[in-house]
Amino acid sequence: MRKIKKLLVANRGEISLRVMRTAKEMGISTVAVYSEADRNSPHVAFADEAVLLGPAPSSQSYLRADKIIETALKMGVDAIHPGYGFLSENADFAKKVTEAGIIFVGPSPESIEVMGSKLAAKQAVARYGIPMVPGTEDAISDIPAAKHKAFEIGYPILIKASAGGGGKGMRIVNQEEEFEEQMLRAISEAQSAFGDGAVFIEKYITSPRHIEIQVLGDQHGNVVYLFERECSVQRRHQKVIEEAPSAVVSPKMRMAMGEAAVQVAKACDYYGAGTVEFIVDEKLDFYFLEMNTRLQVEHPVTEMITGKDLVKEQILIAEGYPLSFSQNDLKISGHSIEVRVYAEDPKNNFLPDIGRLRTYVRPQGPGIRVDDGFEEGMDIPIYYDPMIAKLIVHDENREKAIQRMIRAIDEYQITGIETTLDFCRFVLGHEAFTSGDFDTKFVEKYFRPDLLKVHWSDSEKELLAGLAVEIFEQSKSKLVRVGATESNSSPRTNWKNRLI
Amino acid sequence: MRKIKKLLVANRGEISLRVMRTAKEMGISTVAVYSEADRNSPHVAFADEAVLLGPAPSSQSYLRADKIIETALKMGVDAIHPGYGFLSENADFAKKVTEAGIIFVGPSPESIEVMGSKLAAKQAVARYGIPMVPGTEDAISDIPAAKHKAFEIGYPILIKASAGGGGKGMRIVNQEEEFEEQMLRAISEAQSAFGDGAVFIEKYITSPRHIEIQVLGDQHGNVVYLFERECSVQRRHQKVIEEAPSAVVSPKMRMAMGEAAVQVAKACDYYGAGTVEFIVDEKLDFYFLEMNTRLQVEHPVTEMITGKDLVKEQILIAEGYPLSFSQNDLKISGHSIEVRVYAEDPKNNFLPDIGRLRTYVRPQGPGIRVDDGFEEGMDIPIYYDPMIAKLIVHDENREKAIQRMIRAIDEYQITGIETTLDFCRFVLGHEAFTSGDFDTKFVEKYFRPDLLKVHWSDSEKELLAGLAVEIFEQSKSKLVRVGATESNSSPRTNWKNRLI
Repeated sequence: MRKIKKLLVANRGEISLRVMRTAKEMGISTVAVYSEADRNSPHVAFADEAVLLGPAPSSQSYLRADKIIETALKMGVDAIHPGYGFLSENADFAKKVTEAGIIFVGPSPESIEVMGSKLAAKQAVARYGIPMVPGTEDAISDIPAAKHKAFEIGYPILIKASAGGGGKGMRIVNQEEEFEEQMLRAISEAQSAFGDGAVFIEKYITSPRHIEIQVLGDQHGNVVYLFERECSVQRRHQKVIEEAPSAVVSPKMRMAMGEAAVQVAKACDYYGAGTVEFIVDEKLDFYFLEMNTRLQVEHPVTEMITGKDLVKEQILIAEGYPLSFSQNDLKISGHSIEVRVYAEDPKNNFLPDIGRLRTYVRPQGPGIRVDDGFEEGMDIPIYYDPMIAKLIVHDENREKAIQRMIRAIDEYQITGIETTLDFCRFVLGHEAFTSGDFDTKFVEKYFRPDLLKVHWSDSEKELLAGLAVEIFEQSKSKLVRVGATESNSSPRTNWKNRLI
Repeated sequence: MRKIKKLLVANRGEISLRVMRTAKEMGISTVAVYSEADRNSPHVAFADEAVLLGPAPSSQSYLRADKIIETALKMGVDAIHPGYGFLSENADFAKKVTEAGIIFVGPSPESIEVMGSKLAAKQAVARYGIPMVPGTEDAISDIPAAKHKAFEIGYPILIKASAGGGGKGMRIVNQEEEFEEQMLRAISEAQSAFGDGAVFIEKYITSPRHIEIQVLGDQHGNVVYLFERECSVQRRHQKVIEEAPSAVVSPKMRMAMGEAAVQVAKACDYYGAGTVEFIVDEKLDFYFLEMNTRLQVEHPVTEMITGKDLVKEQILIAEGYPLSFSQNDLKISGHSIEVRVYAEDPKNNFLPDIGRLRTYVRPQGPGIRVDDGFEEGMDIPIYYDPMIAKLIVHDENREKAIQRMIRAIDEYQITGIETTLDFCRFVLGHEAFTSGDFDTKFVEKYFRPDLLKVHWSDSEKELLAGLAVEIFEQSKSKLVRVGATESNSSPRTNWKNRLI
């Protein structure tokens, strides 16, 4: 055991704060790093000490591995927590930190490296019988052989460029008759885009869900799973709403996915907190996608349903402690949902809407948690991810958690910039979401900006109707009184004033 | 079942907000009431509609039962939630509300009445074998008979005036030799203070703990207990810190207390949320004290460890639903602590320190809940209880919950007025508290204002020492730099600036 007394958090904003809060609870003093744009950020104020890294662009500050390690040595820290993003999945950084005699709060550089390559990851876990999306293991260019393989897999299938990315050289084939033509097109596209005509064939999942398993492993070979997170509501491959548990995962499926995830972790001698991502098809068969070798943005929903502080566990593992609990000690308690609040305008194609948080009042009350890194009056800098906050709720079951989240969204007051709060409220109120019957195509299937209308409660509608009548009758008057009693309106019912 | 569509909350501040948040989650629209002093309070802004009751003094606003019922009728509400304090335990109010055809979210007027009288309450529960502090059932004035009774009970015993209160006519007798003299004094004191020399004799509990049981009963005769709350840390009979579960209650004791509490509730045909208070002696024997027929200030700690929303349950019960769970469905999950943050100066005999909240930044992060009714810039009115907020934490066990609470207290930023935060931090760090070995005399035993000193972390002490050396050496310089790197200090380390 090597006790961590001083920790540098190599990150910014909400995740830096979140890590430091736990460090403080553990009696560990904290060092924040920051860019010139973040000089007045709460994560800087919260830390016991804070060090400027450089100018705002990440390449000159939060991605400066050398500068961060130099700072860590200068400040005499025992450990570095990378948060998520930035250097968190950089094996070389993890290696250099360790070589400098500093504890890296995360897995070994080797684990990061293996899981950082999709191919290496698949090879590493292949021999453990982890289910993978059926397809060719190697690139293929022979058409009859490919056609035979496609027949074996079963249609629809996906042809994708071996060297590819970004949808280039990618073709969906629904039936055998189309196969040859589409394969030729894919090869030709791949050839012209990447100079390499080799393609893979794999099963095409029409209605995929993204479900991931949280794992924790110690440095003594123990690995447990902390159940699933449902992350299917995405926009351009960016998660929008996450929840735990998933509405479609049965106890049997949960155990199968959990055990598969533990196998994946063991396959790369994993320790620390990690997430094994699966794609789930319409029949609820699941296939290994990849492993994220860090804390996830959406980790709080797992904390809410398990009662475990994942950062506390990460730190204890990094110090060398064995896990203090076993798989059987872990239970799911209630339901948790997280929405990511972005400074983006859903009515304008989700363009970032950077600016000043003129009003910023967080929701409160039972079962509410807000992880953020801003205060009222601050500017959202243009240099980083435009996420303002993560709003997390917990309640007894999914239905109540949805109601609580809608209440919390309504209570959140943000002015000065457009946010995705209304968009999240739209998703939460949609029948496809409440029924649990949705997939990663939710947003493209159901969302249109004109659907973001104001929501009135029944009593508000009633008042509104009465008010309309009164306005009509007293159309000359400047003041409209609701009933005889002096009445005060809530922020959401400011329409009374606006209408007058 | 009579569905509540519109609810009036006959209260103010944090509890009004807390009740309305749950109402909103249940799709119930809300009516707030307010006094002139609370015109700009968050509970007024939060409500769908709000009605002015009258001037600031409670007797002219929050205690105006007639005005509140009139308002409820005018606004067309289905139900009134009384919160705690004010009219919440006024049987006459509950009766008038019901007579006006409005649902009272609470027990029947009869239950309130029985439990409102200590004597009636004891009589009601006596035949159920509920343990009570041993003593005379009736007033006594015959000395030899009293002495015999004292012998039966066992010393130390307490002699108290039958008509009494406020310590007048109260005597502790440690041994038989002193009995006669003290009894005569008690009778004489009672005679001169109340014109009635009758006294009771009861067992004196040297080291009492205050432990209470939360119960929930429906209108169909089902009653369950939601475990205990430890409320022994008190100051002048006012609870300061509450927690659940108690550090000294074993599963066996919990079940015995829980079942006794359920019996107490059944003895008065109780429905709604209620709390049965017990006094617990050094041997952990418990005795019935009284029943509070309302929601308690400290109810959140029970919500944190059971996952139940007590206000939601209150409303469902008031609507006529049977409880949706049984005793066996209830489990304790983790540990929760609440501290009450008062606008009082612990360095100045806890005198109320009314004024403006110049800075008001709440702690955040995992396992933190703040229930309050103020925002930055607001004034704390002098007319009401000076409680600013309830800070509640939840974590896996008592030790971690204490660490989390200390972190949260340190993170809470309140300027403009003195608060009891430092005092609470003192209690949480005291060995008697951390060991669990304390009683209701904690504050008088251990607290002295001079013990409220600033707490430095190890790294802060180190910096402070280094700084002292530097100041000494550069005593002429205006600027002291810590190390070569640009360094930024946290709010708690503002001493760096102050020292320079």
